[in-house]
Amino acid sequence: MSKNPESVSLCPLNSAADPEPEPLCIFGTGDMGRSLGQRLLQSGYRVVFGSRTPHSCGPLPPGTQVMSHSAAAQSATLVFNCVHREHYGFLETLAPQLKGKVLVDVSNNPKRNLYPEANAEHLQRLVPGAHVVKAFNTLSAWTLQNGPADANRQVYLCGNSAEAKQAVAEIATKLGFTVLDRGSLSAAGELEDFPLQLFPEWRLPLRVAVGLTAFFYLYLLTRIVIYAYVQKGDDISFRLMVSLANKVFPIVSLIMLALCYLPGVIAAFLQLYRGTKYRRFPDWLDRWMLCRKQLGLLALAFAFLHVFYTLIIPQRYYVRNKLTANAISLIRENKTSPFESTMAWRNDSYLALGILGFGLFVLLGITSLPSVSNALSWREFNFVQSKLGYLTLFFCTFHTYLYGWNKFLRPSSYPWYTLPGYMLCLIVPTVVLVLKLLLLVPCVDRSLTRIRRGWDRTDKAEDSEKSLLT
Amino acid sequence: MSKNPESVSLCPLNSAADPEPEPLCIFGTGDMGRSLGQRLLQSGYRVVFGSRTPHSCGPLPPGTQVMSHSAAAQSATLVFNCVHREHYGFLETLAPQLKGKVLVDVSNNPKRNLYPEANAEHLQRLVPGAHVVKAFNTLSAWTLQNGPADANRQVYLCGNSAEAKQAVAEIATKLGFTVLDRGSLSAAGELEDFPLQLFPEWRLPLRVAVGLTAFFYLYLLTRIVIYAYVQKGDDISFRLMVSLANKVFPIVSLIMLALCYLPGVIAAFLQLYRGTKYRRFPDWLDRWMLCRKQLGLLALAFAFLHVFYTLIIPQRYYVRNKLTANAISLIRENKTSPFESTMAWRNDSYLALGILGFGLFVLLGITSLPSVSNALSWREFNFVQSKLGYLTLFFCTFHTYLYGWNKFLRPSSYPWYTLPGYMLCLIVPTVVLVLKLLLLVPCVDRSLTRIRRGWDRTDKAEDSEKSLLT
Amino acid sequence: MSKNPESVSLCPLNSAADPEPEPLCIFGTGDMGRSLGQRLLQSGYRVVFGSRTPHSCGPLPPGTQVMSHSAAAQSATLVFNCVHREHYGFLETLAPQLKGKVLVDVSNNPKRNLYPEANAEHLQRLVPGAHVVKAFNTLSAWTLQNGPADANRQVYLCGNSAEAKQAVAEIATKLGFTVLDRGSLSAAGELEDFPLQLFPEWRLPLRVAVGLTAFFYLYLLTRIVIYAYVQKGDDISFRLMVSLANKVFPIVSLIMLALCYLPGVIAAFLQLYRGTKYRRFPDWLDRWMLCRKQLGLLALAFAFLHVFYTLIIPQRYYVRNKLTANAISLIRENKTSPFESTMAWRNDSYLALGILGFGLFVLLGITSLPSVSNALSWREFNFVQSKLGYLTLFFCTFHTYLYGWNKFLRPSSYPWYTLPGYMLCLIVPTVVLVLKLLLLVPCVDRSLTRIRRGWDRTDKAEDSEKSLLT
Repeated sequence: MSKNPESVSLCPLNSAADPEPEPLCIFGTGDMGRSLGQRLLQSGYRVVFGSRTPHSCGPLPPGTQVMSHSAAAQSATLVFNCVHREHYGFLETLAPQLKGKVLVDVSNNPKRNLYPEANAEHLQRLVPGAHVVKAFNTLSAWTLQNGPADANRQVYLCGNSAEAKQAVAEIATKLGFTVLDRGSLSAAGELEDFPLQLFPEWRLPLRVAVGLTAFFYLYLLTRIVIYAYVQKGDDISFRLMVSLANKVFPIVSLIMLALCYLPGVIAAFLQLYRGTKYRRFPDWLDRWMLCRKQLGLLALAFAFLHVFYTLIIPQRYYVRNKLTANAISLIRENKTSPFESTMAWRNDSYLALGILGFGLFVLLGITSLPSVSNALSWREFNFVQSKLGYLTLFFCTFHTYLYGWNKFLRPSSYPWYTLPGYMLCLIVPTVVLVLKLLLLVPCVDRSLTRIRRGWDRTDKAEDSEKSLLT
Repeated sequence: MSKNPESVSLCPLNSAADPEPEPLCIFGTGDMGRSLGQRLLQSGYRVVFGSRTPHSCGPLPPGTQVMSHSAAAQSATLVFNCVHREHYGFLETLAPQLKGKVLVDVSNNPKRNLYPEANAEHLQRLVPGAHVVKAFNTLSAWTLQNGPADANRQVYLCGNSAEAKQAVAEIATKLGFTVLDRGSLSAAGELEDFPLQLFPEWRLPLRVAVGLTAFFYLYLLTRIVIYAYVQKGDDISFRLMVSLANKVFPIVSLIMLALCYLPGVIAAFLQLYRGTKYRRFPDWLDRWMLCRKQLGLLALAFAFLHVFYTLIIPQRYYVRNKLTANAISLIRENKTSPFESTMAWRNDSYLALGILGFGLFVLLGITSLPSVSNALSWREFNFVQSKLGYLTLFFCTFHTYLYGWNKFLRPSSYPWYTLPGYMLCLIVPTVVLVLKLLLLVPCVDRSLTRIRRGWDRTDKAEDSEKSLLT
Repeated sequence: MSKNPESVSLCPLNSAADPEPEPLCIFGTGDMGRSLGQRLLQSGYRVVFGSRTPHSCGPLPPGTQVMSHSAAAQSATLVFNCVHREHYGFLETLAPQLKGKVLVDVSNNPKRNLYPEANAEHLQRLVPGAHVVKAFNTLSAWTLQNGPADANRQVYLCGNSAEAKQAVAEIATKLGFTVLDRGSLSAAGELEDFPLQLFPEWRLPLRVAVGLTAFFYLYLLTRIVIYAYVQKGDDISFRLMVSLANKVFPIVSLIMLALCYLPGVIAAFLQLYRGTKYRRFPDWLDRWMLCRKQLGLLALAFAFLHVFYTLIIPQRYYVRNKLTANAISLIRENKTSPFESTMAWRNDSYLALGILGFGLFVLLGITSLPSVSNALSWREFNFVQSKLGYLTLFFCTFHTYLYGWNKFLRPSSYPWYTLPGYMLCLIVPTVVLVLKLLLLVPCVDRSLTRIRRGWDRTDKAEDSEKSLLT
């Protein structure tokens, strides 16, 4: 791509349109090399492959040439290095041919911290005369073949030479990608870590979920199964699989949904207390705010499990057995099954609220799909995630209150003086809802809106100064 | 398209590659300003912030400078104004520094119709010497930070100077956005309304849904609950929560699904009647056609609720109680529960059709997700939304017919001489299916296809004329 | 960004910024022509329409002109031909005006193989003096109006003139699309087939699904319904609708899920056997690997049906009747319904595993949505589709084993000496899981990893040669 400054003035806008444009060189004929070559070809570039075995390197995109590494390097001013780091050795011998050329390192490592130095920095040391640019490593061969889409549209690059970076940026743009410059070559290590990330933003929420699940499972195991065994000698261990799990899932789901809205409420109160939005939140709050989406989605997963564990109840052997046994005993004792209207009201309301809450929750989940949330305007996204979110929290909390109903009056609800699970799980959501209600009080709401529009209790002095100025 | 090589040589391809390119200036160090600055920086631009308090304006992206407004304005030829409209005052005093420069207004208002004049027009009046361009206001700070995606890829701009717009368009393109020019600055008001939209295309379908739900709820309330109370003195008000809702949901769902296909059928008959596709449809039909997707998705939401309200039935206190009471009474009366094969056939078919219909409906919903529908070819999308759509409608309608079965023969189905809900709800889908069948008759289908390929019954004269011409 | 006005005037970087840029011409005022015109206009181009009836051609985007074909052709150097192939005749007479110009053919046919020659090639023969470029035909009018997104971002083009293609590529890029050059005009036929494709990659998986469903349905029909009728004279044909279907769905779902992971395992063993990853897989394996996603999604669809058919069980007339009859007979025979803890354990585990498997399966489905999978890093995608995928397969297989339990001991499980469906369906998943376990054995895993990192058992000779070289 003719990067020497003087040649730029001589060089027509888009060399790809020339009758015989200068080719781009690719070292390596693996998946990555071939996919990159094909994409470059389709975007109108000429491509030359460099291979250590030019005569037996397998199928290459039709229309490309294969040469030895040194011949290929000589024919181009820009070289893509699609070779694993283990094989970088040969590049040292090509130093003369690569001198002054742009050398794009697209390599990745199979694991983090495998080498003390980033691949691209290692390459620069091997070939000090070349302008090494780290780029394209976050893309898979598959993305290169099928074209950029969504998050895969971004090409990160870094390097010490601005012109070399510019040359690579132009190619990336022509291939349909958006370029993000990450600075000098010292950022290469960071770029090489990107494709090795494994859900970093899910870690904290997952830990919270696992922690809560383990705690409540053991807690309920103790107060239900172990209690029954110790106090009454009943072996109800079969309840571990469904009954107990189906008590833990809704508890964890509701708590995590509440945890998803709690930081926003805390932030609002912090802003009110400080009287400005310009002071940074404490780190823990920032981190918490950043994983709200993940907290919400995990809560949805637990709600999903709760729903299906609940729907399967009538098919459980235990339940069918109990219902039949119940009918039989009613007959034997010559009793009828009395119908209480209040009970029907309560039970139906409890079920209806649960379904409506779950329906809204699924809606929230759908709108957090990247393609859906991208189609929403900011105000629409806000409406769904905030208004509908609080409505969901309200429905699910109320569903749990109706589940509890008057159970708290029965002494049998407190074996070994422990509180039932549903009571523990109601604490956080109730707190969130009460705090949110406080924030909706008109005068509080007004102050908060003013602060969020940039008003600052502390800079009244400066304000008056500014008004003098204008 | 100016491909002539000589002109290119005078003008450096991409100034970002220059050793020391001219910086872009950003007024305002809020969320928007900082995100924009960071993105510009990452795309290779130099960025200078202008602030009223350059020494205490909080954390800015590393690599940027902060100056006073006037110094910052002087250093650049293009200024982004990321300041709320309330604070525009200071810009008047900067008029000399901004003269002849491009001033990009990215502001939004918290509400519609807050000011009589669009922000950008107001700004142009304050600084008449600058070339004001309205742009980037539809993007959130979040989108700027995380890169463009889907619908967020579009940057709308408008302004009176073509060169100024071109300069902004180039920056937007470099940042990875697609530019849509909306004309002169008088379009600014429209652009400022975009981020304030709240589901405009969902309004009509939502109103239809609410209207139908309210009507059928009250209708069924009258003929079931109130009738039972007045005529037999039974208080079955507990049915409000689940039983009644679960009658209303499928009714509304089926009607809305049918309403989703009705306009297409009407349009086809209109085209057949007119003999041309070149005459515009009446406005009401156009509006109706444009909200078909929303009608369908709302119908799916109601179907979802119907499914879960139905699946929860065996767990209702009322149902369990009734089943037990039923078994007990059978025993007491020394009867057996007779098994009818026809009943089993009918009931199983009814349930199976419902599930298959819901399955297809969910499939339709999934293909209407932006990322899925974008991956389909036009013919594939058409196949799913039309062929599978009608199959869904057929399954759901037939499911309802099987629900009705021979209930229409029982006098008890007509309390107070009113029709049952399921009968009312069958009218629209039946009409749609019958009309669609008519359109599938080969000769009708052939005419319609011809019309849709551009044939025009009214321009036979011109046709012959044209054939003379060629 | 070199904004100083003088430099801009010297360099027509982008002709759209010129005071009066040369217009683009569009032949045809149909949906496609109008949408294209509107988009071009919004991207800053001037647009002139050519129409055979310039005075009565319906509503056009405001800001455009309409002329006769020849006048329009004369005013521009680039002409979009948005006319159906049937009407190409008039273009022959315009040959003089079109000479040396770029003629972009955007046409599509309603069916494949309608004409012996591609539209664009036909056009080139009609107007030999023009540079015909095939482009934009894969986009719908809708996409042009609403802007590019995801898969719709790609514009394929082909043509014999590199300059003409370059000119079209620039326009497409400016409109926000990514350009893929498919070579000379002889590729036009292929491009014209793209929009007519109907789920080509779904064909094979769909055939497998239909074949398996038909086979197992008939098999179970024979050994359950026909057997009962022939041997015992029972008519249980009502089971066709739900019971039988709900046996077939999970069987097909599990087999297809296993078929989705089998080719990967086969490929791994093939690589181990060959000692290299550089030899191509046999064609059947390649084809199989390419439709794994579709196999998995169809398996999910069957799992979905299985889940809902199962959840509806308690509401079936047959089931309710049987439960009541069972309770009555217990009473009559004065027996109690005995509760077995093992049975409860087995039944609950069976249900729980099924739900967890389905939950994971849904998660896999969600991550295969284009917008979600695009947001994942390669390692994340791999983790979900491989690790979670095998976990899903394991859960579902184990769920089926628990379903079988000790049924295989009962002679009644083998009517007419046939094996029950669940046994047949366990073969493939068990094989896959066992083979996968073998691959996880450390020493096997190490060899495979080495091969996949490019190590080659056959090129040790060359390796040593290479090390001499370096």
